[in-house]
Amino acid sequence: MGKETKSGKAGVSDKVYQWKMVTTWPPNFPILDDACKLYARLVAEMSGNRMQIRVFGGGELVPALETFDAVRNGAAEIGHGAAYYWAGKSPAASFFATVPFGMNAQQVASWIHAGGGLALWEDLYAPFGLLPMPAGNTGVQMGGWFNKEINSLGDLKGLKMRIPGLGGAVLARAGGSPVLMAGGELYTGLERGIIDATEWLCPYHDSLMGFDEIAAFYYTPGWHEPGTNLELIFNQSRFEELTSDLKAILRAAAAQSGRWIHAQMEAKNAEAYATLLEKGVKIRRFPPAVIDGLRQLTKEVIEEMANGDRFTQKVYTSYKSFQEVMNRYSTIAEKAFYDNLQEKLS
Amino acid sequence: MGKETKSGKAGVSDKVYQWKMVTTWPPNFPILDDACKLYARLVAEMSGNRMQIRVFGGGELVPALETFDAVRNGAAEIGHGAAYYWAGKSPAASFFATVPFGMNAQQVASWIHAGGGLALWEDLYAPFGLLPMPAGNTGVQMGGWFNKEINSLGDLKGLKMRIPGLGGAVLARAGGSPVLMAGGELYTGLERGIIDATEWLCPYHDSLMGFDEIAAFYYTPGWHEPGTNLELIFNQSRFEELTSDLKAILRAAAAQSGRWIHAQMEAKNAEAYATLLEKGVKIRRFPPAVIDGLRQLTKEVIEEMANGDRFTQKVYTSYKSFQEVMNRYSTIAEKAFYDNLQEKLS
Repeated sequence: MGKETKSGKAGVSDKVYQWKMVTTWPPNFPILDDACKLYARLVAEMSGNRMQIRVFGGGELVPALETFDAVRNGAAEIGHGAAYYWAGKSPAASFFATVPFGMNAQQVASWIHAGGGLALWEDLYAPFGLLPMPAGNTGVQMGGWFNKEINSLGDLKGLKMRIPGLGGAVLARAGGSPVLMAGGELYTGLERGIIDATEWLCPYHDSLMGFDEIAAFYYTPGWHEPGTNLELIFNQSRFEELTSDLKAILRAAAAQSGRWIHAQMEAKNAEAYATLLEKGVKIRRFPPAVIDGLRQLTKEVIEEMANGDRFTQKVYTSYKSFQEVMNRYSTIAEKAFYDNLQEKLS
Repeated sequence: MGKETKSGKAGVSDKVYQWKMVTTWPPNFPILDDACKLYARLVAEMSGNRMQIRVFGGGELVPALETFDAVRNGAAEIGHGAAYYWAGKSPAASFFATVPFGMNAQQVASWIHAGGGLALWEDLYAPFGLLPMPAGNTGVQMGGWFNKEINSLGDLKGLKMRIPGLGGAVLARAGGSPVLMAGGELYTGLERGIIDATEWLCPYHDSLMGFDEIAAFYYTPGWHEPGTNLELIFNQSRFEELTSDLKAILRAAAAQSGRWIHAQMEAKNAEAYATLLEKGVKIRRFPPAVIDGLRQLTKEVIEEMANGDRFTQKVYTSYKSFQEVMNRYSTIAEKAFYDNLQEKLS
């Protein structure tokens, strides 16, 4: 380190780091676990192997939902997941993943990188000794698999549906029963009528679950998850020990592996959707009255949540005002593009 | 280099490179020139200043549209621009930037990174000794500023419009007159009636040009540029001389600065659009019959182009088949999201 050039010092320390990454995803979970391993490869390559990251799927080192605390207490230096899993720490966390009737992938990326979102997210995690980085997006998710047709808001009354988080809170307010159920139990639960409906992800991951074999209808769009932003979290004090070259490498690899996630999601979903259509799966859209009703209930749920503490209110205000200006532009931009697609919903 | 760890060698060479980047953008062009400088900063940071890049705006080292040849012949090691500027080398180049009625930002990123697009792009540039990397997207562009209202395809007859490339070829087929005019002459050209219409970019950059002061209508969407993918190009043999850490750093910085471009574009456009609305700018959508007519003419233009050589045909086939599958999915995914936006076109 310290070679003089006409532009100043050049060179890097040869210190080697061996770090652990824990994730909220099941081991070998398609695309997301792959992306964590891709992240580790990119960082190793860029650093000349000076930063070596070993990836652990959920449950391999710590349980999936202890990722946040494991990175916080230093059991691992890095975590990969989505911020809404940490809504128990602060309700504000959800805005950095997704909220019902929130922004889609492109919009939320713009808020995070060019609308002040990232600074708020860093402020939220700093008291926990954590540093967040945006790391990809799932794209808009699907509304889920239903064995009951939804023609009005009233049809949600008594509906037993696996739908966690804020989406579940909104369903409850509509008179439905959000059910907590692990991924591995959903197929049987739906088949045996223990639940009437379940959301999961998008056509690719949903197809791997086999839901099309046992559900009558596939609803769209996923009003409850319009574009789930993913995260890498770092133990802040371990991160601060690094030289600036490694810090910059960890940031850039998050951008590159995140881009890969989103591209893979879209491509695999498009392919899986074509297969679902061939299989004759019945696609349904939630009728406008259902969407309008859910939007109103969402507003109530989120405003009550935001009123609970000053920081959440601050994040909500930033998110909402960016969304308002962005939605107006999206209407003449991306929406106008999609309005001209020749493809019609079958 | 060569420190042994349990995972093998770690460390990097301390060789220092001083490279030049030439761009197709005017010096200090908002967002795009900023992104080139950001790219140089990110690479310097990640490499510990071992890779130092000096950025030259269009005309500062070579004319903007000689970027491709300047990198090819080694006058600079890197270029930043958009592939359609090189359609004179091969018509296939346009698919790696944008084509009329092509894919939007999210779709084309998916084709490039997860649908085989990047390999084709590399194949296209390899004979020129160049290596391309995707480096951001403008998002869907606007249809342009018009002093004539467009109610039917017939209204395009005789229309003198600044619209380059394939969009211009389509306009010509509709009976219009695409006009070649430099950016700096557009305001006066439109004001004096030398042209009836001009496209430029999106609300932010368009506002900087002042077109709202002299045009009657702002049309959307930019059917001719639904999502322009940007590029970094490298002199392949200079790139191959680098160690793998620097190669990986140059790739990751392209992802990170590209993400920044797209986020900035959306945020600044949304803000500028709000201001245009306050100023009372008249927003118009091209009527469905105009869109359908232009789509049909585009198909003719692109198929003739693709029939011209085997490689272009191959790229077109890949692009078109990916687009078909993706559009079907987008219809129930992102389009369904946008259909539920509360914002209406004013």
